Amino acid sequence: MKGFFKVQTPDQLYKKMDRFKPLSFEKVKIEESLHRVLYEDVISPGNLPEFPRSTVDGFALKAKDTYGAAEKNPALLQVVGEISMGQVSTIEVKEGEAVKVATGGMIPQGADAAEMLEYTEWVDSRTLHVFKAVSPLENVIQVGEDVRSGQVVLRQGHWVRPQDIGLMAGIGRTEVFVYLRPKVAIISSGDEIVPIETAPNPGEVRDINRYAIVAMVEEVGGIPLFLGIAKDRFEALKERIELGLREADMVVITGGSSVGTLDLTGEVLQIFPGTEILGHGVSIRPGKPTLLADIHGKPFLGLPGHPVSAMVIFHFFGKPLLKILSGFSKETLWHQIKVKAKASRNIPSVPGREDYVRVKVEERNGTLWADPIFGKSGAIAHLVNANGLIRIGMNEEGLEAGEEAEVILI
Amino acid sequence: MKGFFKVQTPDQLYKKMDRFKPLSFEKVKIEESLHRVLYEDVISPGNLPEFPRSTVDGFALKAKDTYGAAEKNPALLQVVGEISMGQVSTIEVKEGEAVKVATGGMIPQGADAAEMLEYTEWVDSRTLHVFKAVSPLENVIQVGEDVRSGQVVLRQGHWVRPQDIGLMAGIGRTEVFVYLRPKVAIISSGDEIVPIETAPNPGEVRDINRYAIVAMVEEVGGIPLFLGIAKDRFEALKERIELGLREADMVVITGGSSVGTLDLTGEVLQIFPGTEILGHGVSIRPGKPTLLADIHGKPFLGLPGHPVSAMVIFHFFGKPLLKILSGFSKETLWHQIKVKAKASRNIPSVPGREDYVRVKVEERNGTLWADPIFGKSGAIAHLVNANGLIRIGMNEEGLEAGEEAEVILI
Repeated sequence: MKGFFKVQTPDQLYKKMDRFKPLSFEKVKIEESLHRVLYEDVISPGNLPEFPRSTVDGFALKAKDTYGAAEKNPALLQVVGEISMGQVSTIEVKEGEAVKVATGGMIPQGADAAEMLEYTEWVDSRTLHVFKAVSPLENVIQVGEDVRSGQVVLRQGHWVRPQDIGLMAGIGRTEVFVYLRPKVAIISSGDEIVPIETAPNPGEVRDINRYAIVAMVEEVGGIPLFLGIAKDRFEALKERIELGLREADMVVITGGSSVGTLDLTGEVLQIFPGTEILGHGVSIRPGKPTLLADIHGKPFLGLPGHPVSAMVIFHFFGKPLLKILSGFSKETLWHQIKVKAKASRNIPSVPGREDYVRVKVEERNGTLWADPIFGKSGAIAHLVNANGLIRIGMNEEGLEAGEEAEVILI
Repeated sequence: MKGFFKVQTPDQLYKKMDRFKPLSFEKVKIEESLHRVLYEDVISPGNLPEFPRSTVDGFALKAKDTYGAAEKNPALLQVVGEISMGQVSTIEVKEGEAVKVATGGMIPQGADAAEMLEYTEWVDSRTLHVFKAVSPLENVIQVGEDVRSGQVVLRQGHWVRPQDIGLMAGIGRTEVFVYLRPKVAIISSGDEIVPIETAPNPGEVRDINRYAIVAMVEEVGGIPLFLGIAKDRFEALKERIELGLREADMVVITGGSSVGTLDLTGEVLQIFPGTEILGHGVSIRPGKPTLLADIHGKPFLGLPGHPVSAMVIFHFFGKPLLKILSGFSKETLWHQIKVKAKASRNIPSVPGREDYVRVKVEERNGTLWADPIFGKSGAIAHLVNANGLIRIGMNEEGLEAGEEAEVILI
């Protein structure tokens, strides 16, 4: 196995992830599609709106009847009716006429604009003064102006937000095809790891990673299956990994000690047909001892045992893998929410590895500051104080106080 | 009701929200606490780590035995044993001795530092060359260095992330008290609104808001209860609102037409004992006709009927209300994820209202650009293209192309 331990850059590993393919799909009600990924292009079967609508409370009229109207020179119009919401109007607006209409109401035949209520005044119960000229189509949303019949409104690979569900509702879609949510088997390993309800003996530690990784899988829309704590023995690891491959679409193991467990894990993987080790070791800090494999099309990710390292590596490698399985489009796959902030102190870094420094981003006097949170990678409390990571590139030497950097929000 | 229609600024309305209080609480397993809000301060019952641990693979030793060690002048140490993971070590390290240890392993008695494997070389099976000096405590995480016994590790009002669950696991918490998730009754109103599975007649439109608002409530952790479409009649509205107040912690109604429905709704609210109208009309665009009331301690929010306006208002008023009920701490209540981007075109705005311009933020050649997406507020498709909102203040006149602005990500 030692031969595999050739450290690669994150980009080299990312390129190798291309081989994984999205899972199958299912049909869900649109109200169940929130934060799922579309399997289909959603095409509108009709126009939206389906009839011309007013965007204001006021009067539908012919724009040219208002030309020249002003505060001191109002146009005079006859009000010939009112549009009831939800009703088809048979009224036709003729020259010199107006019809009362509410926001969203139908613009009747003959009218080509709407005048806002604020710019009108009743002269008597049938006659209206208009104090401001409108141009044709002003305050009107035309047939198909929002969505045209046949238009692709949402594309395959799109991650569904509330506004997307609203749009699907608007075009009359009640169900939609989405990619399946990936099932992710999670195995904790390490002879020192004990369940959290156990009082650890000296030398033992509680299984932090199980809980952190399960929650991260849920955050990206995966379905976590925790398979228990495996001792650092070939047979114990083999049994859990076998179960994971049978039950899940992806297997994640968090190693106990840094090199040992993942070496042993790499050996176990060899017994599964179609295994290809894609990487063992990545030039990233924290998190160097990372194992990535393709087991007959299913991604296998070995994470370092340190909770902070495990979480950082899962963020940068586990989440993209899950997103690939979930069908995210290429453009959104690598999307990270970033802000620019100034380093509040010098942040040193060792060249030769990508360094992800935990920071707390905070606005002080209108400036975003990134306060580095230093802590040994075995510690977890400092990750709780952090809300971002600053990437210091392979060939950079760190940041000086006051220097601006991009912060990945976590 | 007209008397109530005195437009207020968003800040005026925000101040009035102070009166609402968080709901009650419940105990959940820590793995079910993701994205919930803590009802209690979480206090660590013990130290983390509970024993001194190595942060590297290498050798535990006395730092002073390495002083002066260098590539050409290695220190010579006797290896007297190896620490097994998960085991209590009875070995004591004496002057001139070293013990093999893996990352996370216990630092045995007598040792005060750990040397990395890379800086050592076996001379024979018991003797070791050390090529680099370490200082006391180097590569060691001490007892309580991560978390001290009695330390508050997470505060009441904190929104739980994966790392927080990891930390709770680390200190042995299996259950935690969190605030209840608010139930939110959602009512659609408007005579023109029809269920989405219905083919609308001319003049009718599908109920977009139901779906958009239900999803937004879910995104903030609320439990949506959709109560159907009410006609714009006193009795119909009264019946649904009554049901909402009985079944839910907050009631949201989306108005059909802009002024009419919310006026009528305001009248309906008067019949419920303890109703106080806090605002009717807010100087924001889109979304002016907004109704906020306190019905015997339960927030009631009336949203404009236009889907885009309804979503913008729910974002700025509905979400904070839900967060108050959910127990979010004051510091996090108004938190918005923002980035700075340059306007790609001139963005005009009318003074006198806060204007929220829908934009698409995109990185081009290393610069974040905000492309304004213009569209009438009755349209929804353009909100689907947007991923952010730029706020143009009450007394500002818009942005010039190239000017930098803060974008609220949506």
